[in-house]
Amino acid sequence: MRIDEMTSEDFREAVIKGATVILPLGATEAHGPHLPLGTDTFQPEYVAERVAEMNDNVLVAPVMPYGQHSSMRNVAGTIGISFDTLRAFVTDVLNYLIADGIRRIVIISGHAGTSHMCAITEACRAVVGRRDVRIAFFSDYDIASEMTNVENDGHGGLVETSRILDIRPDLVRGARPVGTYKSHGHLVLRDGSVCFPEGMAGDTRDSTPEFGKEINDYVVRAVSEIIREDLS
Amino acid sequence: MRIDEMTSEDFREAVIKGATVILPLGATEAHGPHLPLGTDTFQPEYVAERVAEMNDNVLVAPVMPYGQHSSMRNVAGTIGISFDTLRAFVTDVLNYLIADGIRRIVIISGHAGTSHMCAITEACRAVVGRRDVRIAFFSDYDIASEMTNVENDGHGGLVETSRILDIRPDLVRGARPVGTYKSHGHLVLRDGSVCFPEGMAGDTRDSTPEFGKEINDYVVRAVSEIIREDLS
Amino acid sequence: MRIDEMTSEDFREAVIKGATVILPLGATEAHGPHLPLGTDTFQPEYVAERVAEMNDNVLVAPVMPYGQHSSMRNVAGTIGISFDTLRAFVTDVLNYLIADGIRRIVIISGHAGTSHMCAITEACRAVVGRRDVRIAFFSDYDIASEMTNVENDGHGGLVETSRILDIRPDLVRGARPVGTYKSHGHLVLRDGSVCFPEGMAGDTRDSTPEFGKEINDYVVRAVSEIIREDLS
Amino acid sequence: MRIDEMTSEDFREAVIKGATVILPLGATEAHGPHLPLGTDTFQPEYVAERVAEMNDNVLVAPVMPYGQHSSMRNVAGTIGISFDTLRAFVTDVLNYLIADGIRRIVIISGHAGTSHMCAITEACRAVVGRRDVRIAFFSDYDIASEMTNVENDGHGGLVETSRILDIRPDLVRGARPVGTYKSHGHLVLRDGSVCFPEGMAGDTRDSTPEFGKEINDYVVRAVSEIIREDLS
Amino acid sequence: MRIDEMTSEDFREAVIKGATVILPLGATEAHGPHLPLGTDTFQPEYVAERVAEMNDNVLVAPVMPYGQHSSMRNVAGTIGISFDTLRAFVTDVLNYLIADGIRRIVIISGHAGTSHMCAITEACRAVVGRRDVRIAFFSDYDIASEMTNVENDGHGGLVETSRILDIRPDLVRGARPVGTYKSHGHLVLRDGSVCFPEGMAGDTRDSTPEFGKEINDYVVRAVSEIIREDLS
Amino acid sequence: MRIDEMTSEDFREAVIKGATVILPLGATEAHGPHLPLGTDTFQPEYVAERVAEMNDNVLVAPVMPYGQHSSMRNVAGTIGISFDTLRAFVTDVLNYLIADGIRRIVIISGHAGTSHMCAITEACRAVVGRRDVRIAFFSDYDIASEMTNVENDGHGGLVETSRILDIRPDLVRGARPVGTYKSHGHLVLRDGSVCFPEGMAGDTRDSTPEFGKEINDYVVRAVSEIIREDLS
Repeated sequence: MRIDEMTSEDFREAVIKGATVILPLGATEAHGPHLPLGTDTFQPEYVAERVAEMNDNVLVAPVMPYGQHSSMRNVAGTIGISFDTLRAFVTDVLNYLIADGIRRIVIISGHAGTSHMCAITEACRAVVGRRDVRIAFFSDYDIASEMTNVENDGHGGLVETSRILDIRPDLVRGARPVGTYKSHGHLVLRDGSVCFPEGMAGDTRDSTPEFGKEINDYVVRAVSEIIREDLS
Repeated sequence: MRIDEMTSEDFREAVIKGATVILPLGATEAHGPHLPLGTDTFQPEYVAERVAEMNDNVLVAPVMPYGQHSSMRNVAGTIGISFDTLRAFVTDVLNYLIADGIRRIVIISGHAGTSHMCAITEACRAVVGRRDVRIAFFSDYDIASEMTNVENDGHGGLVETSRILDIRPDLVRGARPVGTYKSHGHLVLRDGSVCFPEGMAGDTRDSTPEFGKEINDYVVRAVSEIIREDLS
Repeated sequence: MRIDEMTSEDFREAVIKGATVILPLGATEAHGPHLPLGTDTFQPEYVAERVAEMNDNVLVAPVMPYGQHSSMRNVAGTIGISFDTLRAFVTDVLNYLIADGIRRIVIISGHAGTSHMCAITEACRAVVGRRDVRIAFFSDYDIASEMTNVENDGHGGLVETSRILDIRPDLVRGARPVGTYKSHGHLVLRDGSVCFPEGMAGDTRDSTPEFGKEINDYVVRAVSEIIREDLS
Repeated sequence: MRIDEMTSEDFREAVIKGATVILPLGATEAHGPHLPLGTDTFQPEYVAERVAEMNDNVLVAPVMPYGQHSSMRNVAGTIGISFDTLRAFVTDVLNYLIADGIRRIVIISGHAGTSHMCAITEACRAVVGRRDVRIAFFSDYDIASEMTNVENDGHGGLVETSRILDIRPDLVRGARPVGTYKSHGHLVLRDGSVCFPEGMAGDTRDSTPEFGKEINDYVVRAVSEIIREDLS
Repeated sequence: MRIDEMTSEDFREAVIKGATVILPLGATEAHGPHLPLGTDTFQPEYVAERVAEMNDNVLVAPVMPYGQHSSMRNVAGTIGISFDTLRAFVTDVLNYLIADGIRRIVIISGHAGTSHMCAITEACRAVVGRRDVRIAFFSDYDIASEMTNVENDGHGGLVETSRILDIRPDLVRGARPVGTYKSHGHLVLRDGSVCFPEGMAGDTRDSTPEFGKEINDYVVRAVSEIIREDLS
Repeated sequence: MRIDEMTSEDFREAVIKGATVILPLGATEAHGPHLPLGTDTFQPEYVAERVAEMNDNVLVAPVMPYGQHSSMRNVAGTIGISFDTLRAFVTDVLNYLIADGIRRIVIISGHAGTSHMCAITEACRAVVGRRDVRIAFFSDYDIASEMTNVENDGHGGLVETSRILDIRPDLVRGARPVGTYKSHGHLVLRDGSVCFPEGMAGDTRDSTPEFGKEINDYVVRAVSEIIREDLS
């Protein structure tokens, strides 16, 4: 069930029955020459909707399509928000959900940047410290990476390309690029995109919708399990 | 063109050609017994996409589905953000767009609450005061109301119901309600929903998809005109 | 009773008897070629003092002579504060009054700018949501406008000129100007004063102290009624 | 010249001639059994107006009647604002005055609490560090205390009582009290009013309007000298 | 006992026995040609450690070596933090100590700048207003000045030089300077160091480690007394 | 060179010669039954001082002994600051160093918590984005972990115990504990210390000062290399 398609009354009834809410957090970020700017939005939204279909009384909140960016902040098409705005956003939405009576919340972030994840974690921790609620939070990117464990695969790489080929094949463009993450050691960078000379990291030449489906299925099962195990 | 479906390179090229960006701002808010919680999201997103189809080099940024709420804040299904978070959100996204090279921006808000509009206005004014950019901002709700001018019609009323019947007929439920706005004078209310005993305001019994289409067409034309007149 | 003329002991006694406090909020703002910069301060202060004379145990807090400005912010003589400062100011003063034992508060704003009103509303709502207090808030400018209903009359127009002719005739200068509000559509303006080419809006040629008195009397009665009806 | 009595045009002309602005900062604070709550407002406003009369092109901004309080914060009739609000207020008003073209500003505070003074100082320092302006800031209470140098005289004491007897004799009530400041060492107090068991400090039995006039005359001369010496 | 040398278990036991914690606040600030930048850190840390040795169950928290600066902010070697950061720092540490079960806290500041002291005071007051804790706060500089009462002695003067000669004689360099505080009246200064043409104030030619020891012994006794009297 | 032992003049000269500043960031945090609360302070301070001895014109700023904590925040002896305070602290100190003329800065954090590191990173990134400065930032804990690569070794484990046995052997207490990190999946924890049932993670039975020295030497060499490679 998508919350934006429910009426107020539908929502009230779902709360009474002890609904779990999934909040998908997306991003609008440059993802190499081949993937759409909404890559980090499409993935968690897709996962959330499939989890909701497969599990009882799981509601999907509207996806937030803006996140916090560091490496890609200056690359064309990246449109984001600051650390503080993201933290405030998550805090506000959690407080609204809790005020509405929700006691089990899953936050799935498509983007997995360190500061982005930290902003969300800080918001969740502060809320959990004050309110009676169970919150699980993770990036579906990280779950996918753990499963696939492809060496040197990263931003816009084999895993993400395959997943988008499964979810939105119409949006993957041209040839399948190869890119290498170029470390700059411990220097704090003015423009982090220098670490991605090709705009992405990994070898996407073997990406297929079949592999993407395998990954997406795995992530959907993993999230379902988190709901059953961690949130009960 | 939806920005989330473009690649980084697509976006760069559109900027070089002087693209205009429409940022639709939605909300997740109780809209009476008959309308979906995403009512204020579906309307500006629909308008933005149709304006983009009809005008050259107009891009649609991902819709933000959370806004600031006063009257409906305690009603089941309303999920929002604070004044300060909304203002920070708009400021951040505007700064990103400007850094990307965008010089013409239209913000369309589906929700028209006074404080919600004020938060967005304050963000726009501060940005316009410092940066070289032209921004138009309005609520498509207000444009629709000015056109239709139906007495006592308001939140979830005849106009909104008709518009959603045109855009997402599958989401309008049950009977067509009648509701009356009940003023509480100048008292600052702890719970503003007492002004909406029926959860909405207006007489929706005559709502039709045809009337909705007429309104939506009008709004699309009005926005196109704003882009041509105010932003050039 | 003006609070600044009372001793601590006077105030304590008034609180015990259930005093109502009026907090007049003024502004220092350009008001055309003919009206003084304190126009928005003199009006609510005058109203507050007359309401206090005519009603039992109504105290007038010292008038705050600075508000938030948008349109007139760059015009000579406008001296104001930001949205956040105004909101914080109102919040602080309300909290002090409540801590002192006051349970009925009327805030009258002389300035009626949208963001100015919103800042005060946001402060009031937050306080009302947490504390046991009744607050009425409005602009005496709006009450006067509703009563008089003069077409195209606005900032520094017929109504304001007449009211100041009644309250401080010594401060109205030279000829009676005519000005037209010039709309700029939905564009967010860098300098809102372009909407007021003559620095004011309306036709003041028929302004008289008699009409001003009539309006002021009406406003005083309206505020007295709000205290009796809304705050009890 | 009081700014609130000037028109926009009057103000513009004064700026062109290089006007100095005095910003009087008052307070609403319990001042013992005999003095009015506006004691700290009446004094700097009186000084500012007399300095303006005696010096060329000196303008008096509207007095701000709320300050920051520590010792008296819980005593009936004290109505104040927080440290941050006061600092923001002074910052905003200074920025407006500078934007208007003012280059010489005198801030006179009636209240002399340490944190109150610090909030104003911090605002002034930040502005002076960024903008081309000369600002003098002091409390007329401190100038009066240095001149009179009465032992153990303080809040609501001989000096303040005499000054108010000169300025607003109608507002000094009943007998002339005697009070002793009771130190609590280095302990941070929850309620600082325990240091003022009588609500004031000093022996007011010898207070006279003549002595008050002598002090007020001295302060007015001192401020005139500051304008001539420090601000040129 | 230094807290940084204790284990978690040591600390828990000390809390159970009702430990008092001393939090020494230092600074890194230019102190004339002869004294080290850590002058304001070494003094309160030394005092705190000696008080802890001489009193039962007194723990010394790690010294904070950065404070807020005004006069010396632009002089080489001054490294500080803002008013707001210092206030937040003290607030956070106090809240941690209280959450840990500490109910008696002494804050000793080596630096005695007015705004620096105010930031700490504001933090302490806010905490004391909400939590069940006794806090004493002072500058050991002020205690030393009251005892010695040397005319025109100040920053980096006879008292501080003698104290550092007692505590860290290896760090006092070259000749003993003489400096004069040069008042700039009530003008808010862009660079406060103009008041210290020699970088310090006082006549240090008679400074000796013996005098320093005398002062330090006095301060240690005074702090011990504050713990016994004010905090019990 | 320790900055707190230098005079203002020493510092000025070092800046002219192009000094590099190391800012060690410590923490006061429970580190198991055997290690002192200052474990995360002693390590980076020791590294910083040895790097300064071995390299030309490298200055050590005073160590900041408080950091941000999540897992250990409720354990006895942990005394920390919030995310925002830490970020503000680092921002302020960096701005002071840059204003002083420093253009090469190394920040070494003893504590390596994710949010703690993120707060520092966010501060560094914002400063680097605006100012002409090179900043390297890392945790010496992470550098030590990469070198040693001991499985399941973590907070208060074999590496940290050995390092402290080298640096401050007097402070390591009792038996050498064994502890296991207990994952709680993706659940956001109210009290993160449940992941450390023994208060630490790793098997410290083989810890020796010799191993600690080996690690510390490695870290010192690694930091020296970062200064030579990344900062030039």
